[in-house]
Amino acid sequence: MNILIINGPNLNLLGKREPRVYGNDSLSEIQSEIVQLAKELNIDVEFYQSNHEGGIIDALHNAMDESDGVILNAGAYTHYSYAIRDAIAAIKIPVVEVHMSNIHAREEFRHTSVIAPVCRGSILGFGKNSYLLALRAIMDIIDSQK
Amino acid sequence: MNILIINGPNLNLLGKREPRVYGNDSLSEIQSEIVQLAKELNIDVEFYQSNHEGGIIDALHNAMDESDGVILNAGAYTHYSYAIRDAIAAIKIPVVEVHMSNIHAREEFRHTSVIAPVCRGSILGFGKNSYLLALRAIMDIIDSQK
Amino acid sequence: MNILIINGPNLNLLGKREPRVYGNDSLSEIQSEIVQLAKELNIDVEFYQSNHEGGIIDALHNAMDESDGVILNAGAYTHYSYAIRDAIAAIKIPVVEVHMSNIHAREEFRHTSVIAPVCRGSILGFGKNSYLLALRAIMDIIDSQK
Amino acid sequence: MNILIINGPNLNLLGKREPRVYGNDSLSEIQSEIVQLAKELNIDVEFYQSNHEGGIIDALHNAMDESDGVILNAGAYTHYSYAIRDAIAAIKIPVVEVHMSNIHAREEFRHTSVIAPVCRGSILGFGKNSYLLALRAIMDIIDSQK
Amino acid sequence: MNILIINGPNLNLLGKREPRVYGNDSLSEIQSEIVQLAKELNIDVEFYQSNHEGGIIDALHNAMDESDGVILNAGAYTHYSYAIRDAIAAIKIPVVEVHMSNIHAREEFRHTSVIAPVCRGSILGFGKNSYLLALRAIMDIIDSQK
Amino acid sequence: MNILIINGPNLNLLGKREPRVYGNDSLSEIQSEIVQLAKELNIDVEFYQSNHEGGIIDALHNAMDESDGVILNAGAYTHYSYAIRDAIAAIKIPVVEVHMSNIHAREEFRHTSVIAPVCRGSILGFGKNSYLLALRAIMDIIDSQK
Amino acid sequence: MNILIINGPNLNLLGKREPRVYGNDSLSEIQSEIVQLAKELNIDVEFYQSNHEGGIIDALHNAMDESDGVILNAGAYTHYSYAIRDAIAAIKIPVVEVHMSNIHAREEFRHTSVIAPVCRGSILGFGKNSYLLALRAIMDIIDSQK
Amino acid sequence: MNILIINGPNLNLLGKREPRVYGNDSLSEIQSEIVQLAKELNIDVEFYQSNHEGGIIDALHNAMDESDGVILNAGAYTHYSYAIRDAIAAIKIPVVEVHMSNIHAREEFRHTSVIAPVCRGSILGFGKNSYLLALRAIMDIIDSQK
Amino acid sequence: MNILIINGPNLNLLGKREPRVYGNDSLSEIQSEIVQLAKELNIDVEFYQSNHEGGIIDALHNAMDESDGVILNAGAYTHYSYAIRDAIAAIKIPVVEVHMSNIHAREEFRHTSVIAPVCRGSILGFGKNSYLLALRAIMDIIDSQK
Amino acid sequence: MNILIINGPNLNLLGKREPRVYGNDSLSEIQSEIVQLAKELNIDVEFYQSNHEGGIIDALHNAMDESDGVILNAGAYTHYSYAIRDAIAAIKIPVVEVHMSNIHAREEFRHTSVIAPVCRGSILGFGKNSYLLALRAIMDIIDSQK
Amino acid sequence: MNILIINGPNLNLLGKREPRVYGNDSLSEIQSEIVQLAKELNIDVEFYQSNHEGGIIDALHNAMDESDGVILNAGAYTHYSYAIRDAIAAIKIPVVEVHMSNIHAREEFRHTSVIAPVCRGSILGFGKNSYLLALRAIMDIIDSQK
Amino acid sequence: MNILIINGPNLNLLGKREPRVYGNDSLSEIQSEIVQLAKELNIDVEFYQSNHEGGIIDALHNAMDESDGVILNAGAYTHYSYAIRDAIAAIKIPVVEVHMSNIHAREEFRHTSVIAPVCRGSILGFGKNSYLLALRAIMDIIDSQK
Repeated sequence: MNILIINGPNLNLLGKREPRVYGNDSLSEIQSEIVQLAKELNIDVEFYQSNHEGGIIDALHNAMDESDGVILNAGAYTHYSYAIRDAIAAIKIPVVEVHMSNIHAREEFRHTSVIAPVCRGSILGFGKNSYLLALRAIMDIIDSQK
Repeated sequence: MNILIINGPNLNLLGKREPRVYGNDSLSEIQSEIVQLAKELNIDVEFYQSNHEGGIIDALHNAMDESDGVILNAGAYTHYSYAIRDAIAAIKIPVVEVHMSNIHAREEFRHTSVIAPVCRGSILGFGKNSYLLALRAIMDIIDSQK
Repeated sequence: MNILIINGPNLNLLGKREPRVYGNDSLSEIQSEIVQLAKELNIDVEFYQSNHEGGIIDALHNAMDESDGVILNAGAYTHYSYAIRDAIAAIKIPVVEVHMSNIHAREEFRHTSVIAPVCRGSILGFGKNSYLLALRAIMDIIDSQK
Repeated sequence: MNILIINGPNLNLLGKREPRVYGNDSLSEIQSEIVQLAKELNIDVEFYQSNHEGGIIDALHNAMDESDGVILNAGAYTHYSYAIRDAIAAIKIPVVEVHMSNIHAREEFRHTSVIAPVCRGSILGFGKNSYLLALRAIMDIIDSQK
Repeated sequence: MNILIINGPNLNLLGKREPRVYGNDSLSEIQSEIVQLAKELNIDVEFYQSNHEGGIIDALHNAMDESDGVILNAGAYTHYSYAIRDAIAAIKIPVVEVHMSNIHAREEFRHTSVIAPVCRGSILGFGKNSYLLALRAIMDIIDSQK
Repeated sequence: MNILIINGPNLNLLGKREPRVYGNDSLSEIQSEIVQLAKELNIDVEFYQSNHEGGIIDALHNAMDESDGVILNAGAYTHYSYAIRDAIAAIKIPVVEVHMSNIHAREEFRHTSVIAPVCRGSILGFGKNSYLLALRAIMDIIDSQK
Repeated sequence: MNILIINGPNLNLLGKREPRVYGNDSLSEIQSEIVQLAKELNIDVEFYQSNHEGGIIDALHNAMDESDGVILNAGAYTHYSYAIRDAIAAIKIPVVEVHMSNIHAREEFRHTSVIAPVCRGSILGFGKNSYLLALRAIMDIIDSQK
Repeated sequence: MNILIINGPNLNLLGKREPRVYGNDSLSEIQSEIVQLAKELNIDVEFYQSNHEGGIIDALHNAMDESDGVILNAGAYTHYSYAIRDAIAAIKIPVVEVHMSNIHAREEFRHTSVIAPVCRGSILGFGKNSYLLALRAIMDIIDSQK
Repeated sequence: MNILIINGPNLNLLGKREPRVYGNDSLSEIQSEIVQLAKELNIDVEFYQSNHEGGIIDALHNAMDESDGVILNAGAYTHYSYAIRDAIAAIKIPVVEVHMSNIHAREEFRHTSVIAPVCRGSILGFGKNSYLLALRAIMDIIDSQK
Repeated sequence: MNILIINGPNLNLLGKREPRVYGNDSLSEIQSEIVQLAKELNIDVEFYQSNHEGGIIDALHNAMDESDGVILNAGAYTHYSYAIRDAIAAIKIPVVEVHMSNIHAREEFRHTSVIAPVCRGSILGFGKNSYLLALRAIMDIIDSQK
Repeated sequence: MNILIINGPNLNLLGKREPRVYGNDSLSEIQSEIVQLAKELNIDVEFYQSNHEGGIIDALHNAMDESDGVILNAGAYTHYSYAIRDAIAAIKIPVVEVHMSNIHAREEFRHTSVIAPVCRGSILGFGKNSYLLALRAIMDIIDSQK
Repeated sequence: MNILIINGPNLNLLGKREPRVYGNDSLSEIQSEIVQLAKELNIDVEFYQSNHEGGIIDALHNAMDESDGVILNAGAYTHYSYAIRDAIAAIKIPVVEVHMSNIHAREEFRHTSVIAPVCRGSILGFGKNSYLLALRAIMDIIDSQK
């Protein structure tokens, strides 16, 4: 099983950016923990980070052929990128939305996710654990499709 | 560790109600699976289901003294019960919101959760697996508080 | 044929409450007239009144096994109880919405019925006659399903 | 007792138009059933159908002198014709609003009736039976005025 | 100078309809008073009344060739007829909007006039005197164009 | 008969300010024309201009004892001064609203008049003629009250 | 004189819940202070607390026969319970709304009270003193009705 | 192949009305160009123009039996005539929406087309060429249905 | 203890203005009653009334040095004067908002108080008694600050 | 004549993505058909596809010097890219908007095109034929500019 | 060059009021710094402060004859004073809007400036430096007009 | 001191694009003037322009290590790029927002800046001078932080 984990804009700054909201771990530290759980679960994971909306769309398109599922933290694009939404709807593999912070406890504009309706499910508010839970969630979805 | 799992209105009909949305498992079948995972994780779980908004509030109040955390599927109360929201905010233990269906892929009124801002996090769209993921999530929260 | 007639909050005060809007008949006087028409139409009717949202949901659930249809005057819950809406959608028997007053000729907040979309039809504005018309309407629906 | 039954735009196509929503009966077949019930109830009924907003207003004005009440299915004019609303408010005889389909279970724009506030009551969602129930309803109103 | 005075839907009922709002004078009585003032001011006036939106548009088109200006009480069409608005904008002669009642002191939907932006000016709230004032107003506009 | 004509903020600049919208006449030139018509109609007129909301309210209060009616061009206060609205509603003499420009053909914020609902009527869009028409209008109102 | 003091959802947690907002006194301590003032004013007071919307409605109904007035802190139900609103409007005795916190200085959803329009008056923001002031207020209303 | 081309309110004034927006050609000149292209494409075209909403609905109904498709410029009815929308949805032949001007570059109220969702497609902004393109478009639709 | 009681626009007309809403007492009669209670409570009270928004702001500024607290009935400025709001927030002494009428039972625009969020609390709907209750309320606030 | 045809995000997936909405042809198959028509019409066409908003803006800028006109299917950027809108407005050559699907018959968010107001015209709902019609449309615009 | 610097409501409290937002300098200290820069730039500056909306309008009118430009910090009037907006639009000299705080980072109601559209430009968020920058900005505007 | 000046989409067209709005200077001419002032002020400036949202985010991230502050004209991204907003909030150096035109005097969608709340301040409407003023402003901010 092959899972692509996409991180959107500003998530490359994890650990440096607003630690009160996002914690102290850097993106690579979080990715290490994901790799470790993936090994336990016998999953291959790949990572992609970009601040470019188009880059995320391209990555989603590529995943169609190379991955069984996608875990997506679209950062602020979550709130307005209908182009990413269309990409998720267009590819046939399952996509799970994750957020480290509880977006509903923050500014008004973060309460709307335009991609949520086309994802299989959403996990939000558990810090880096959101990714780990998403890994279990998407494994379950892919297993149940077999 | 003691976790209370509260299910709100109409969830007693699981298995009977709209299986296309909620699956074929009854509430007690789902609860059996939760119990099984809880054992593996060494967690004690209790269950409460009510169609009464006030009943859910009372249960949340009781949890303050008797539980370390709450997993809450508030059903349709999710979308308008500011009284349940206040109860969550008032008790000091962590509460995790779950939904079996992807509420963002359904009717407009289901897109707003008035309780999300006062929960620690939300997990939605994974069917009965939402509860299992929530169990892992809340265990992690409680462990990290120690 | 077995019909359950549910009356929601404050309808126990009929006759005492705002007679200009709701007329002078008490709920039991109206129920007597319904019983009389039911006899003519060869229908068994039962009555339930509660000021509790959860009570109405419980009653709708019970009706699944014991009634062929429900006539529901949800009172003010009409305007915000998505939990009652879900209960109506979950049970498989037909539900007809009634109101004694013309809710569209009153305050703005009464113009929206969140339960109307999941009821078979609505009858409103005819005083106690709304119930009698609803009895004929639901009989016709049940007959046409046979 | 003399009742005018007005059908608005596109209702001349009944039976041809979207039978899943409106059933298979043509307007004249429905009118035959109304005539039959009218005879039983000892009521004289007349019919008017027009796709013209102004034609419906003219018909409502004429009804002032020639009818004791009006049953009105204003079709799509229901949702925006304040001119028809004013006509209803201006004539002194009672008007009952009917719809064959449950307008609240359809597109958003059909959820608002600008004529409902000036009608005595509304009956909607019961197919052709909506007219028959309305006949009983308006008879009751006229009888109670005597 | 030739002025066309157009009255829209339900204004043929003046004197019969809601006298508390519109006064006791019939449309023909009001027209007599207008004729009298017109004579004093040396103006020729013609009258047109219709409940048909399209009829009012046709009349406005005809006025282009036959009148120097139009006084228009569009009744309820005032609030939604963008087709009448377009007709006013299309003809090159001045149009003055009148209302007998103070539309801003009535229901919310009457507070918006979609035709006001393309009329020269508006006079409202003075009962039948609104027409007499409009006659003076349009005479002044036409005179000042010479 | 004694009429007070109140002009609100920025109207002291008439003739200097945006002549394309307001014409070339200064406020005193317009007032001269009003005086002339008032003489013909045998009315005494007084004038008050202020850029101060409170000053306009004070003037309205004083008018209660000293005037039979008020003609009010409230300038931009028209669109938000609920305090002036309350003053108009509080004094018992009739108030007529005037505007020189067609406020509905200008910026969005000018389309709402918060004082219109408590005035007897409104005259707008006729340049300085708006005042002259208002003088006739208020004379008619006062005469009809006798 | 007999006054019923109703406290709604989560107010049983007073003293435990968000002391920065609600102070340190428990509900029973506050009730003691109310009893003391009631004695001074020669008023009999009774208390009722419930987290159940239906329970509050039942209590309001009972008050019709047994109390001269009601002081109501409806908690979060303040913001959406049209059913409680209807109950207040239905009973004939005066009801005074109280809140300990200044609801207008808190979250957006707390700025709207759906019950305020049918209460006699509201007192909010004075902590436990809100109840004491309400006691004086309702005494004054009842006295003035005699 | 038989195509009906319907032009709605005020389009009879083409050439006279706002030439900056609509060009200098009269409706009959445009129709001549359409006839010419129709001949090239071997299509029979008929024309209908009306300022009456009901007239347009009648014409659409007639087209069901006599035409293979309709090209509709509904003029200002585009923005509010749900009755025309229902007529389009009711007839089974394809309807293509055209506008000469770019309605999105004009007043706010022109940005919404209530008929667009039930038309096959829309062509707007190309002046008289909009009709010619629509002729090719509808021919293609009808051909592909064979 | 020194309390300033500010009355805003139109409150000088109390007794003359809409007695059904505001009662028959003049402002000076109400002030006499306030003085009497103030004596009992051993408080010095001063009064200020102005129809000028700026005057009220000036008075609030002066109160900073000369008063221990302010009771403010801002009249219609309540609903839009962000300048008064800023003045209240800027001065460090407590301000209590009062209204004689129940503003939530009146026109829509009166339901919003832009000053409420920066006042300590609000008392509304008790007629002249609102002032007397406010006097007790502010005394309690000032006492508790010592 | 040189025309650039730009396709935005996810249109590279044509044929693979939601064939029910977009048909079975791949983008290159559609481009072949466009090339064929272009030859007939004696037009040179070039193609550009990108999932990157910035890439589309760059392409529009380049077109200023190298193309006579642009046909643009901006995909989901249609609904929110004010940056693309500004690019269209900034370049001096005509741009025609196309969509294969009828965006008004799909989700709410697709009903708004932020680029439509600055395009010459729009063609939508005709599948791949939308491009062919657009080619004729833009040829006509460019010809008429000569 | 003669510049008038107008400060609106509550700015006389600078230094005393919310120093976290507005800094510790009093208005006269800030004015001293402005005078110093003005000398360097060879500009004459005058100052006016008022809490009265009408006073600010009067000052703007006077500036027409006596100043070459105005720097305006309208305080809270920024957000609703259409009367001040009209005054700015009416006088022919340039007006620059300044705010010491970043109004977009504060309460929702401060995000809208009704005067911004008629000012030449806006400078906000730089504390007292906002005035100094505005002085340079307006000097540049006036110089470029020569 | 090292300042990065970022220009967003379409600003590379300055001088070519809508000179009535943006003036005749090209971006490089404006940058020359900025360099000149920077020299006077002893500041090092660097420039970056991109039409790519992601490119601007990358540049902001890089500035964290290499610049003391950023001047940002985000072009149309100003109105919807929450991703750029997040980047500004994430980096710790001050960012000043500039616009050459007065965005509040243009289309509605330009009135909202989603980045303003996280910038230190904004300068808008002064043409190329906006950049020069911003340079002085950010220098002052950085100096005051030392």
